[in-house]
Amino acid sequence: MLGLLAPTHPDWIDAARSDLDAVLHDHLHCELKAASNATALVARYPMFSRLVRTLSELAREELTHVQQVYAELEARGFNPRPPGEDPYAGALRKASLVDTPHGDLGPLLDRLTVGALIEARSCERFSLLRDHAPTEPMRAWYGQLFISEAQHYRLFASLAEEIAGESVARKRLQELAVREAEILKKLPISPRIH
Amino acid sequence: MLGLLAPTHPDWIDAARSDLDAVLHDHLHCELKAASNATALVARYPMFSRLVRTLSELAREELTHVQQVYAELEARGFNPRPPGEDPYAGALRKASLVDTPHGDLGPLLDRLTVGALIEARSCERFSLLRDHAPTEPMRAWYGQLFISEAQHYRLFASLAEEIAGESVARKRLQELAVREAEILKKLPISPRIH
Repeated sequence: MLGLLAPTHPDWIDAARSDLDAVLHDHLHCELKAASNATALVARYPMFSRLVRTLSELAREELTHVQQVYAELEARGFNPRPPGEDPYAGALRKASLVDTPHGDLGPLLDRLTVGALIEARSCERFSLLRDHAPTEPMRAWYGQLFISEAQHYRLFASLAEEIAGESVARKRLQELAVREAEILKKLPISPRIH
Repeated sequence: MLGLLAPTHPDWIDAARSDLDAVLHDHLHCELKAASNATALVARYPMFSRLVRTLSELAREELTHVQQVYAELEARGFNPRPPGEDPYAGALRKASLVDTPHGDLGPLLDRLTVGALIEARSCERFSLLRDHAPTEPMRAWYGQLFISEAQHYRLFASLAEEIAGESVARKRLQELAVREAEILKKLPISPRIH
């Protein structure tokens, strides 16, 4: 699905359903990190016009998701905390530092490719929550998030292709997707989006 | 004006008018930093409900300003770069580290107070540009930005009062406004928002 090479473990959805508060809290911080990362990319690479226009809009959308997730946490009486560690994204960023493609744009290609994979994994898990969340309004909401994250995956992948060329970008996506699948296999199954 | 203790030097508007490209480029990065800072505050302090709701919305608005400033730079054929140093905000943050009020919330009070002062100074300079920018559409646009930044100033100041109490927050705003005026006096007059 969306360039991912391994599906989420079948036990994940049970772990998620058994502690939706934890899933939502992790989700809150995932959306904040996504907004922050997109804003940082715009600041670092303002010479790429489509990147500026699309990632500033993506950041705005992620902040709307922050507001939605926060409202859901409040309705459930859950008190959010600052973010904890993020072993999945941390490991993926670290893995992307190995064999970064040459040239000034190698680091940007890697950040866009990692962005694409993180969006793809969120998207896959939202599709599981769309099908298995406990209430109909939640399933509908996760269905909307699924669509949004799929669009974000395609946006990151297309920006990578525009900036590095189609064949270089696709090869790098394939390489990092292999590492993403390995990272996922090593992490415990837990009620998190990542 | 808005808690500021010293007006911008009268020569600033001439410097700004003589290099509007530079003003707009600095403005682009000011808006990006404001969005990034607001997002970081939400992530670090998600236990404060009004802070989350209002600063996530503020970040969305700053990203809209990013898009507006970027469109103006593109229309002028200016190629933006990554951000350079920001001596004003850097000095203000450093100055706020001296005598931070005690308690767990001291650092948050200071970040909100510095945020209020930065918004106030932007607001003051947008009022000068609203009156003296070279074209009527630019003057109208700076007039809108002036209103928006004044609201942001009031938001940061009211969040500080809510979190630290009115008298503590007002005292701290007064202390840091003294330092802000000193910092401004030492910086060269240049075509920047800050």
